[in-house]
Amino acid sequence: MQTEKGQSIEDASMQMIEDEIGDHEYDKREWQIVRRMIHSTADFDFAGCNKVVFHPDAIESGMSALKRGCSIITDVNGVIGGLNKQNPRDFGNRLVCNISDPGIMETAKKEGKTRSQVSMRAAASEINGGVVAIGNAPTALLEVIQMAREKAARPALIVGIPVGFICAAESKEELARLKEAPFITNLGRKGGSSSASAVINALFKMIRAESS
Amino acid sequence: MQTEKGQSIEDASMQMIEDEIGDHEYDKREWQIVRRMIHSTADFDFAGCNKVVFHPDAIESGMSALKRGCSIITDVNGVIGGLNKQNPRDFGNRLVCNISDPGIMETAKKEGKTRSQVSMRAAASEINGGVVAIGNAPTALLEVIQMAREKAARPALIVGIPVGFICAAESKEELARLKEAPFITNLGRKGGSSSASAVINALFKMIRAESS
Repeated sequence: MQTEKGQSIEDASMQMIEDEIGDHEYDKREWQIVRRMIHSTADFDFAGCNKVVFHPDAIESGMSALKRGCSIITDVNGVIGGLNKQNPRDFGNRLVCNISDPGIMETAKKEGKTRSQVSMRAAASEINGGVVAIGNAPTALLEVIQMAREKAARPALIVGIPVGFICAAESKEELARLKEAPFITNLGRKGGSSSASAVINALFKMIRAESS
Repeated sequence: MQTEKGQSIEDASMQMIEDEIGDHEYDKREWQIVRRMIHSTADFDFAGCNKVVFHPDAIESGMSALKRGCSIITDVNGVIGGLNKQNPRDFGNRLVCNISDPGIMETAKKEGKTRSQVSMRAAASEINGGVVAIGNAPTALLEVIQMAREKAARPALIVGIPVGFICAAESKEELARLKEAPFITNLGRKGGSSSASAVINALFKMIRAESS
């Protein structure tokens, strides 16, 4: 789903990132992911003060689940918007984002929670064996961390890249300490739905490259 | 469509931005927009080296068109994903993103263009009187600039915040020189779909605040 011109712009962009990045600490697969995050944000801080942190099993577990057609569960529609849709079509992944469901809103109001927090708990069955991609809400990420610790769901991978001023950095520090599930996260306040989509798009790109 | 808890997190975030920003050059309405871009990216560069630039009629023209229910035309689905959907529902705005249409792909291949470039030309009738929000593709922005210069369409507002390494900064410099239509853009490589959505969300927020 890329024209020749679109692909040549992407290739030239990636080359500029390679030329400007200098030394970094990532291995070959990790760098595919970090480079795509930088590509989607033009922000080299994702290899610097907001650097990406990988659980040792994250890439393997995420690629293997996506390849098998696992569900992809997001906190906001923006993460789904940023995905290359050809991938879930080809691999049969269901895209799940419950945040706008009226029932979620009702429960959130009743329980004094955020919608994204409630939407994660409601998606427990999809999260089990699925890949979670959080680009916005720290409350969603903290809920998934708690679900993993309680064994309420065992995600194949948690991509936790919320952005913001209240609790985003703290929720990601908590994720980086998680033992119960593989994760990809980053340091500090920066992140966002484009970065979370970029991680998923990069994983699919590697699946295609390694099977071709 | 915000819970009490969600709103209180947003309020606290905005307060942190106010506390940290220090002096800036924006007037009250402009700052509502820039602050929401910083909120959605945790990136103060949008008031610094990637600062936002406003055509003098931009905010007035954009608010007035959105309030009348104009179409909102985006280059990528990610921009639509980041919009607060309650606004277009309440004000009757049509959300237009043609990039995944098979016909667009075909034309793009045939003409050696990008899909997003072709998708803008195909949306000329919606762009006329509409608000364009570009968060990804410089080629889409350059096409809209050309359409405005040719009087092929007269947008009420062009929000041009593409991100990236190839031509993003240059396309935005071109937009900042446009005489034929009001614009909101920013300097440099940074931008993205979350920032473009943030501008539109902020405009609707001001419409509601000023009419309540």
